[in-house]
Amino acid sequence: MDLTRLQQQMSFLLEIDQLKNVLRQTYVSDRSRRENDAEHSWHLAMMALTLEEYANEKNINLLHVIKMLLIHDLVEIDAGDTFAYDNKGYEDKDEREREAADRIFNLLPENQAAHIFDLWEEFEARETPEARFAAALDRLQPMLLNSITKGASWQKHDIRKEQVLKRNAQIAEGSKDLWEYAQAVIEDSVEKGYLKV
Amino acid sequence: MDLTRLQQQMSFLLEIDQLKNVLRQTYVSDRSRRENDAEHSWHLAMMALTLEEYANEKNINLLHVIKMLLIHDLVEIDAGDTFAYDNKGYEDKDEREREAADRIFNLLPENQAAHIFDLWEEFEARETPEARFAAALDRLQPMLLNSITKGASWQKHDIRKEQVLKRNAQIAEGSKDLWEYAQAVIEDSVEKGYLKV
Repeated sequence: MDLTRLQQQMSFLLEIDQLKNVLRQTYVSDRSRRENDAEHSWHLAMMALTLEEYANEKNINLLHVIKMLLIHDLVEIDAGDTFAYDNKGYEDKDEREREAADRIFNLLPENQAAHIFDLWEEFEARETPEARFAAALDRLQPMLLNSITKGASWQKHDIRKEQVLKRNAQIAEGSKDLWEYAQAVIEDSVEKGYLKV
Repeated sequence: MDLTRLQQQMSFLLEIDQLKNVLRQTYVSDRSRRENDAEHSWHLAMMALTLEEYANEKNINLLHVIKMLLIHDLVEIDAGDTFAYDNKGYEDKDEREREAADRIFNLLPENQAAHIFDLWEEFEARETPEARFAAALDRLQPMLLNSITKGASWQKHDIRKEQVLKRNAQIAEGSKDLWEYAQAVIEDSVEKGYLKV
């Protein structure tokens, strides 16, 4: 056993524990508090497991999808969560996240750091079937939570239907079926008064 | 698209959001609060991704390991978390968890419910290489968190070294290397006064 290698891996695993304290704008289902990035990532992995059959491309590599979902928010340990509808926050998002990736991924042994970099860049680029499906789930999940928390996050930030439609239309690139479902969720939320027109 | 099927899947995915509110006895790394089952499950999946090379058996199926880790605590939504050193709580643990599995897994369409049942039973039985490795990570993770929180959970419950050694020796069934590492963590924790002799 290469103890230096194992210690690098353990340093990484303890460092990423901090993802549990990065708060998102979305509320958990009982509205008691905001969701954090670690539990969000778990939820997305469970969605991949459950909803794989709705990916546009058949025979996608599920392990690859899940790996991307597990690691996609690690950079937010340093860069923070940028709210979906925060245009200003998006201006320097790429630079902040790139620096974070450099620091956090490089805690790992070189071959593993390179693997996580590849996964993260693939997710961000959305050019492979797996990345498009993973990104679709990442967009869908907060809409589901909004729909069962009476639009807790939408209401707080005064979000309107057109913004939600515009931002999330990208779901169709990963799953036409799930985008169809999401549009029904949006209509239903408007009808119930959870989302403003 | 079979809408009834999709609605069953969505009911399951919203129901399991409650795993985010099931608290464990372990503290997150900054000691600010107790960890919940959803973020614990994410952390274990990240450990599987990072530490796969230390499994006793080579060429294990990583996707299978990760699936088991993602779902292994779902039954605690109804049954609650049973603390590792709570002998009384273990008396009726199996029965409580079996009832929970029946209710929660069966929210899914039949073929998917059966798959999750299989994964959960495989994890609990620890008879396959994948289950033994997954279970080893589940034992190791709270020890790692104890080691960087100055034994927050060990101290609170007045846990002693012999108890930790006895409970966690099972790690060796999944990974001799990680059990060797864990023993060093235990010794170090005793030396630093985080764990009583």
